[in-house]
Amino acid sequence: MQPITQPTLLIDEAKCRRNIDMMVNKAKKHGIRLRPHFKTHQSVAVGKWCQEAGIEAITVSSLKMATYFAKNGWQDITIAFPFYAQEMAGVNKLAEEIDLNLTIVSPESIKVLKEQLDYAVGAYIKIDVGTHRTGIRPEDGEQIEAMIGEILRNPMVIFKGFMAHAGHTYGARDEAEIQQIHQDTLKIMCKVRDTYQEKFDLHDDPLEVSIGDTPGFSVANDFEGAQELRPGNCVFYDVMQTQIGSCDADQIAVAMACPVVAKHADRYEVVIHGGAVHFSKDFITDGHGHKVFGQIVRLTPDGWGEPIPEMHLARLSQEHGVISTSPEAFDTLQTGDVIGVLPIHSCLTANLMRGYRTFDDQSLDHLEGQIL
Amino acid sequence: MQPITQPTLLIDEAKCRRNIDMMVNKAKKHGIRLRPHFKTHQSVAVGKWCQEAGIEAITVSSLKMATYFAKNGWQDITIAFPFYAQEMAGVNKLAEEIDLNLTIVSPESIKVLKEQLDYAVGAYIKIDVGTHRTGIRPEDGEQIEAMIGEILRNPMVIFKGFMAHAGHTYGARDEAEIQQIHQDTLKIMCKVRDTYQEKFDLHDDPLEVSIGDTPGFSVANDFEGAQELRPGNCVFYDVMQTQIGSCDADQIAVAMACPVVAKHADRYEVVIHGGAVHFSKDFITDGHGHKVFGQIVRLTPDGWGEPIPEMHLARLSQEHGVISTSPEAFDTLQTGDVIGVLPIHSCLTANLMRGYRTFDDQSLDHLEGQIL
Repeated sequence: MQPITQPTLLIDEAKCRRNIDMMVNKAKKHGIRLRPHFKTHQSVAVGKWCQEAGIEAITVSSLKMATYFAKNGWQDITIAFPFYAQEMAGVNKLAEEIDLNLTIVSPESIKVLKEQLDYAVGAYIKIDVGTHRTGIRPEDGEQIEAMIGEILRNPMVIFKGFMAHAGHTYGARDEAEIQQIHQDTLKIMCKVRDTYQEKFDLHDDPLEVSIGDTPGFSVANDFEGAQELRPGNCVFYDVMQTQIGSCDADQIAVAMACPVVAKHADRYEVVIHGGAVHFSKDFITDGHGHKVFGQIVRLTPDGWGEPIPEMHLARLSQEHGVISTSPEAFDTLQTGDVIGVLPIHSCLTANLMRGYRTFDDQSLDHLEGQIL
Repeated sequence: MQPITQPTLLIDEAKCRRNIDMMVNKAKKHGIRLRPHFKTHQSVAVGKWCQEAGIEAITVSSLKMATYFAKNGWQDITIAFPFYAQEMAGVNKLAEEIDLNLTIVSPESIKVLKEQLDYAVGAYIKIDVGTHRTGIRPEDGEQIEAMIGEILRNPMVIFKGFMAHAGHTYGARDEAEIQQIHQDTLKIMCKVRDTYQEKFDLHDDPLEVSIGDTPGFSVANDFEGAQELRPGNCVFYDVMQTQIGSCDADQIAVAMACPVVAKHADRYEVVIHGGAVHFSKDFITDGHGHKVFGQIVRLTPDGWGEPIPEMHLARLSQEHGVISTSPEAFDTLQTGDVIGVLPIHSCLTANLMRGYRTFDDQSLDHLEGQIL
């Protein structure tokens, strides 16, 4: 492997492919369409590994991301972010070329589609299953009914069903709580689907339930009633997902490589090149009440080891990271070393790093590192 | 102005140039060299405005950033981040072409320079004036003396003096506390400088004191004893700086433009396209104990208004932002609007957005949006 000269995002291809296979096999076992979210990796190269594992349909979180993957051969894309008027020209351009699904959360956006859509698109109404970020509350029956009515009046919009993201699993304290949220989500969504399928007599073209959070997908074994699964973070996982209980540390498929630039023996701290512009400012709070911005690992020629329990990334500024260590562990790091750091939130770290390096020195793309 | 179709970082050129002029005039008034930190804007275009205001020397926070500005005509650059061994090849390349100053915090890095430096560079020893991020503590006289001795033995390294970044001003509660930290910093730094200038008999080529934090620069009016000032964030300012007391809201020179994508009347929340990949996750806590990820402003054809007190950006996920409003203010925002958001930390927001748009539709560069 070529020497590391600056903060570099390493990807373990074997671990990443194992994570992709896990997703594919889980969806296959339950007989449900897998439409993984590509917002975590945002990479054509990693997308190719997904394709090789049999994935044909994908989810993205912006029109920009949809455009990137469409230009690189993906033909079936759902934008799982509320469609809005300012995107109309871009949506028309994309809808001419690929099978595009939109996420609908407002009557205004349905009106825009009625007036300005030139090519057919699919549409899902987003339901708020308890995260309270966005989506229509299931109890707002009048609004849901009015929106479906308007969508069905537009022959250019194919109403596909209902979508949810149970993001409140991220606040879960243990697996049981994730399971509970997942079961509640399925129950709410199936009821909504059944209600409006019946009400609008859509049995010939049955409506779908599409669900998506990574913790729920990782932990649950019952997806009865859902037609589509949209996990995102499973492709890489990260420290936050290990804390929630979605994965083990050895499933994390990306790590930052950071040069050690200074040691401070008076406080057992080690400074690395690796800061907020590399990691993002997401953190977890560990069992000792410490803020943790990353877990420290030893790099090997073809991967990295287990998190070192006596060290954690304790503070970040723009370019500096400060590792807090035990007195004993302090002596194991030297100025001039390159140390590994498992990210707290791999989506944000990848979005900042804009590219990956494999252990056989390939550079993999990331949307934000490309000029389209 | 062209319509906004996605989250866009707007720059108010007049405000930005006023901020630059303020920096230049303040340094001139005190007869001290200004070497502003370019890590905030990372832009050749904004750098040109600095040049037009008379700035000739700059500070950056990475070798990558130094290389970018050197390629674009800057000839006098200090990298205010600890020099480390892995950067040696890049430093040699740059030192051949421009006047380059390095930051030294470890004996190991001095050894690397001795063995591998091919072209002359300047060097500052970084002193820890109380931030405890990195730098040598002023009381570690033996270490400072040994390091200076080693530096002076290398004819390729010109020892310039001492550098500090009093980053603990960011934790200050009021102007008086910033003033106190600033005075303490000056006192510590001048004493260190005087001590070693005397000890190594360097009166013919006197050592410098270079200081740099934005709050201290903004608030203080006494820089007696310093030879160089390195403010960074003054060029744009941001909400965090208004909270610290470094600036007024009307000095903030960048704002995000974000489409409004959904409204939720049950909780008086408005969802925008604008999330962690646009703003970063930095926040302040306001007087009511709310986490604030951005302040909301109305956009006008040539700028933006004052922060709207009844609204704040309350939560962020990857692409979504959630604005919390009062019941009355809720009705003033509509799906389809484009709203302005003043960033909490403009350096991180600019680093994520990778480019700026002016109100006369120019696109300005940012290092991370360029392929070098």
